[in-house]
Amino acid sequence: MNLTVAQKIIKDHIVSGEFKKESEIGIRIDQTLTQDSTGTMAYLQLENMGIDKVKTKKSLAYIDHNILQAGPENADDHLYIQTVAKKYGIYFSKPGNGICHQVHLERFGVPGQTLLGSDSHTPTCGGIGMLAIGAGGLDVAVAMAGGEYYIKTPDVVKVELVGKLNKGVSAKDIILEVLRIYTVKGGVNKIFEYCGEALKYLSVPQRATITNMGAELGATTSIFPSDKVTYEFLKAQGREDDYVEILADEEAIYDESIVIDLAEIKPLAACPHSPDNVVNVCELKDIKVNQVAIGSCTNSSLVDMMKVAEILENKTIAEHVSLVISPGSKQVLNMLAANGALAKMVSAGARILESACGPCIGMGQAPSTGGVSLRTFNRNFKGRSGTTSADIYIVSPEVAAVSAITGYLTSPENIDDSKISMPHKFLINDNLIVPPAKEGEEIDVIKGPNIKDFPKTEPLKDILKGKILIKVEDNITTDHIMPSNAKLLPYRSNIPYLSEYCFKPCDPDFPSRAKEFKGGFILGGANYGQGSSREHAALAPLYLGIKAVIAKSFARIHKQNLINNGILPLTFKNEKDYDDIDLMDEISLEDNFKNLDTGLFVLKNLTKNKEYEVNLDITSRQKKMILAGGLLNLIKQNNDIGGK
Amino acid sequence: MNLTVAQKIIKDHIVSGEFKKESEIGIRIDQTLTQDSTGTMAYLQLENMGIDKVKTKKSLAYIDHNILQAGPENADDHLYIQTVAKKYGIYFSKPGNGICHQVHLERFGVPGQTLLGSDSHTPTCGGIGMLAIGAGGLDVAVAMAGGEYYIKTPDVVKVELVGKLNKGVSAKDIILEVLRIYTVKGGVNKIFEYCGEALKYLSVPQRATITNMGAELGATTSIFPSDKVTYEFLKAQGREDDYVEILADEEAIYDESIVIDLAEIKPLAACPHSPDNVVNVCELKDIKVNQVAIGSCTNSSLVDMMKVAEILENKTIAEHVSLVISPGSKQVLNMLAANGALAKMVSAGARILESACGPCIGMGQAPSTGGVSLRTFNRNFKGRSGTTSADIYIVSPEVAAVSAITGYLTSPENIDDSKISMPHKFLINDNLIVPPAKEGEEIDVIKGPNIKDFPKTEPLKDILKGKILIKVEDNITTDHIMPSNAKLLPYRSNIPYLSEYCFKPCDPDFPSRAKEFKGGFILGGANYGQGSSREHAALAPLYLGIKAVIAKSFARIHKQNLINNGILPLTFKNEKDYDDIDLMDEISLEDNFKNLDTGLFVLKNLTKNKEYEVNLDITSRQKKMILAGGLLNLIKQNNDIGGK
Repeated sequence: MNLTVAQKIIKDHIVSGEFKKESEIGIRIDQTLTQDSTGTMAYLQLENMGIDKVKTKKSLAYIDHNILQAGPENADDHLYIQTVAKKYGIYFSKPGNGICHQVHLERFGVPGQTLLGSDSHTPTCGGIGMLAIGAGGLDVAVAMAGGEYYIKTPDVVKVELVGKLNKGVSAKDIILEVLRIYTVKGGVNKIFEYCGEALKYLSVPQRATITNMGAELGATTSIFPSDKVTYEFLKAQGREDDYVEILADEEAIYDESIVIDLAEIKPLAACPHSPDNVVNVCELKDIKVNQVAIGSCTNSSLVDMMKVAEILENKTIAEHVSLVISPGSKQVLNMLAANGALAKMVSAGARILESACGPCIGMGQAPSTGGVSLRTFNRNFKGRSGTTSADIYIVSPEVAAVSAITGYLTSPENIDDSKISMPHKFLINDNLIVPPAKEGEEIDVIKGPNIKDFPKTEPLKDILKGKILIKVEDNITTDHIMPSNAKLLPYRSNIPYLSEYCFKPCDPDFPSRAKEFKGGFILGGANYGQGSSREHAALAPLYLGIKAVIAKSFARIHKQNLINNGILPLTFKNEKDYDDIDLMDEISLEDNFKNLDTGLFVLKNLTKNKEYEVNLDITSRQKKMILAGGLLNLIKQNNDIGGK
Repeated sequence: MNLTVAQKIIKDHIVSGEFKKESEIGIRIDQTLTQDSTGTMAYLQLENMGIDKVKTKKSLAYIDHNILQAGPENADDHLYIQTVAKKYGIYFSKPGNGICHQVHLERFGVPGQTLLGSDSHTPTCGGIGMLAIGAGGLDVAVAMAGGEYYIKTPDVVKVELVGKLNKGVSAKDIILEVLRIYTVKGGVNKIFEYCGEALKYLSVPQRATITNMGAELGATTSIFPSDKVTYEFLKAQGREDDYVEILADEEAIYDESIVIDLAEIKPLAACPHSPDNVVNVCELKDIKVNQVAIGSCTNSSLVDMMKVAEILENKTIAEHVSLVISPGSKQVLNMLAANGALAKMVSAGARILESACGPCIGMGQAPSTGGVSLRTFNRNFKGRSGTTSADIYIVSPEVAAVSAITGYLTSPENIDDSKISMPHKFLINDNLIVPPAKEGEEIDVIKGPNIKDFPKTEPLKDILKGKILIKVEDNITTDHIMPSNAKLLPYRSNIPYLSEYCFKPCDPDFPSRAKEFKGGFILGGANYGQGSSREHAALAPLYLGIKAVIAKSFARIHKQNLINNGILPLTFKNEKDYDDIDLMDEISLEDNFKNLDTGLFVLKNLTKNKEYEVNLDITSRQKKMILAGGLLNLIKQNNDIGGK
């Protein structure tokens, strides 16, 4: 055989379809994870699927997003998830236990298995040779119920790492370099598979930084082989029994390849406002920093934190800097508190935040107006920090820590952190993981008053008519479509409330316009719906009556979320037609039943009296969903979740 | 001499008036403190007083309230306070450095001196024999500018403590016992002064728990002598030079006295929804607990935290409990992180929050709907937690920690924490305290877009005309007049924005009505303006053009806040006249200049063609303020802040 690591795992899990270019395949899902901001909706959907218990090998429900808790909504969501998890055979990770991806990597991920998570950074577990994919909540609910997960057969990109990182350069700089080369659009429908002589120097936490932020490439996932380094990590976690070696065959065939010499990489920064706007830190002069934030699922491992503590030891942060640090998990925090590293951070002036996503998802710590914030996170989209006027730079923990001391964006040239390495034994204490009940039927699921049903969908109609209710440009993120911030996150289980803020960063009048005209169409540019996997970016438009999105191209997860909810994702045959259509143009799509077969539709612009050809590039399985008005309708209609 | 500790300090600081019952006295203020939610307004006022530098011995500006930072408003406020402090000679305590009262006790309070703070828990420093009083922001601004602070000569209550606390009983239970006896109304215009043989067993942090929560008695302040125990504390803080012995004279004359035998006290809880609703914990059966919160200015000292860590060691919190712990200061957190205690807490499942007020002021960690939360804080008013339906019990750290493990409200009968005592040496590192500039004029004060000027006032006019814009009933609190919650707290420096929420709980249309009619009058019942001292309950009506409040009676602090801002607080000579006046009646007050002298006014109801006699019961000093249109105008007019 001539297979790569990813191909081996996929072939091992194929349930339907054929593994060949452009073909859609259905794969069996071994593990699932949810976090709380996408989780409530996923579990509301799961409760509608008519099963008693999840069918996966292991399913986890994490609480890591909504942990500020300004009102009862968050604690109510936590209680709902805790009780529904207990009933349906799902392990529950209590608030305080850490960020889902960090904890899953430490305690649950298994090489060679598949993981589907309702969070776009689920690929983190690719760091231990797991095929880990982010998806919408409904897809994860289907997987929990035993259904397969569908993807287009992905291309596999060989990323060969050679050479050795210089002092002060870290795994974060490797993935920033990949982003510089490939951009945020370069990974669509691809798996980035890492190999090469340099792998032996990269510990699992470092590998996980790379696979985690591979999400910013728009990739299906990223993956490392499961090798001796993986074994060392699992052993240190007391999980050597979960180890299985998975290496690419020597003659493995990749679709693309690239070689990166680690010795050539310098400390990098992704400048405002995109993770691929990457520049050498030493080229950025005199950038005064107001805030430094260290943590997130990308850079909150014990080793990351130990390096930061080492740099901060016996130093004081600059007078004008606020430094916040969020260790990634209870395990990390506990070890830092036990070994004295946390004391070094506090002593230097760091504010220690909870082990959670925190400021990375705009959950607190918004910078000052026009402020500059250095963050070890993964995304620096405009406004995501909670401050629209702020400039966010994405950097490594080393750059962040050094800059917190100097007060200016600083390259950590002479930092020698070679003595910091992964421990041989992690502190293992899973007492914030609540196991499911033995007898689920005895458990009462508790739903607070803010938890509303998800919006209902209708089967496709043969004629769809309406206005273009918003026209947006290229690279619109799910943050634009359905903003996520400290004020809105508590309402993730309340779509009617959330929908009032749909597209607010682009046009605050969109929700009222959509209501006035009883729904209509969205006109989008290229890469529409990139970024976070949040299903709410489909559910809010659905609630507002959106029938179709017509765009130049779609980001993978969002396209699936639209289809899952019965919204047509149409692309222009001729991209220039985009320029011809204006806000409030009256649009009509006709003969939909017939056109669904061919995938070719004609968009009539009744206002301008013109016609444009648009494509519906979806599989026959997805066509059934569109016809039924979404996946949940289809499941109910067929009384069949899929999966074998 | 036959003086108590409090009387000695007052006599030492009298600038005007005579120390005798019912007489108003002006006292010199040595130190001031502000926190960020009241601080921005105080500094805006200070900037208008025409001074270059504060005149106090030491002034501190703390950031401890608005630290969640969901939007840029908080960081902008922090930056404003940091720059204005630097300019005007004020020490700035950065976010992360801890709760103002805890830090002030540790690092700045001085026995025998006076402290005025824009926070009601300022009496905490009474634990080291300081005369520490909470006041409105403008009063604190005046004190910074060198003006005296006026109080009515207080009665001194002798609280004699005898006997020794039993195992599992702590300082918190002592103050709960005092609250049980005196109630929340029992302390008005009194100073509670502690003495007795048991004092030698009570460390300064324990004493500070008692003086802190003395605020709930409605007292002017609470105070302990400065004795050997005080010396030990100051020495452990490296501040033995600040020590001065201050003991009550043996023949000191108190206005009241009470003896409390500590051996008789059992672990106590203040039940929902008042701090004086105190019951023995062992009498409260089967109360299932959803949340336990440990911290706040009342109970976040190192010793409190060490006891909690000891109880939690090698235990796991109950499955249904969320335990959050906020150490009170950077010093406390640093020492816990260095000595392993924090690791014990984390290991048991605690979530570690920032060193700040946090959930005590409803800033995060709102319980679930109808949830039960045990808190080591000081107030359990309905809704203050962020969840109106929640039941909050105020308890000691020992009760809280034990109950977190059992999951039920539990009396810590057999806890032996006798080996935990105050260290002989605290870890001293003030690197989050930014000293003021040597040359203040070189500093630019930075004001973010959310920081608006405080409303301007005009000198009294001889005729005031307008409509009754709202008619409210008895016992209206400042929470009714100007609500305060996690969503509104970030706007404490934006009166125009806040004023949109003025009287929202009573009548959401009040702000628009006030604007439509360009101001007018408020008609109130008895005890108008009770509750929190917040100045914003006068500033928002001022901004909306309110000229006078006519009520049956006023709460003391709010009445002063109205006068400070040039709003007439008028009371009916005949309370029944209240019934005769209706919403939107047109009112006129004439001959105001003449009537100010006598304090007798005639309220003309032009709509009903009737007249009512009303009184203005204020001192001659206050009359000058009313005439000038508020204290700030008076200061500018006279170019004299007062104080000698």
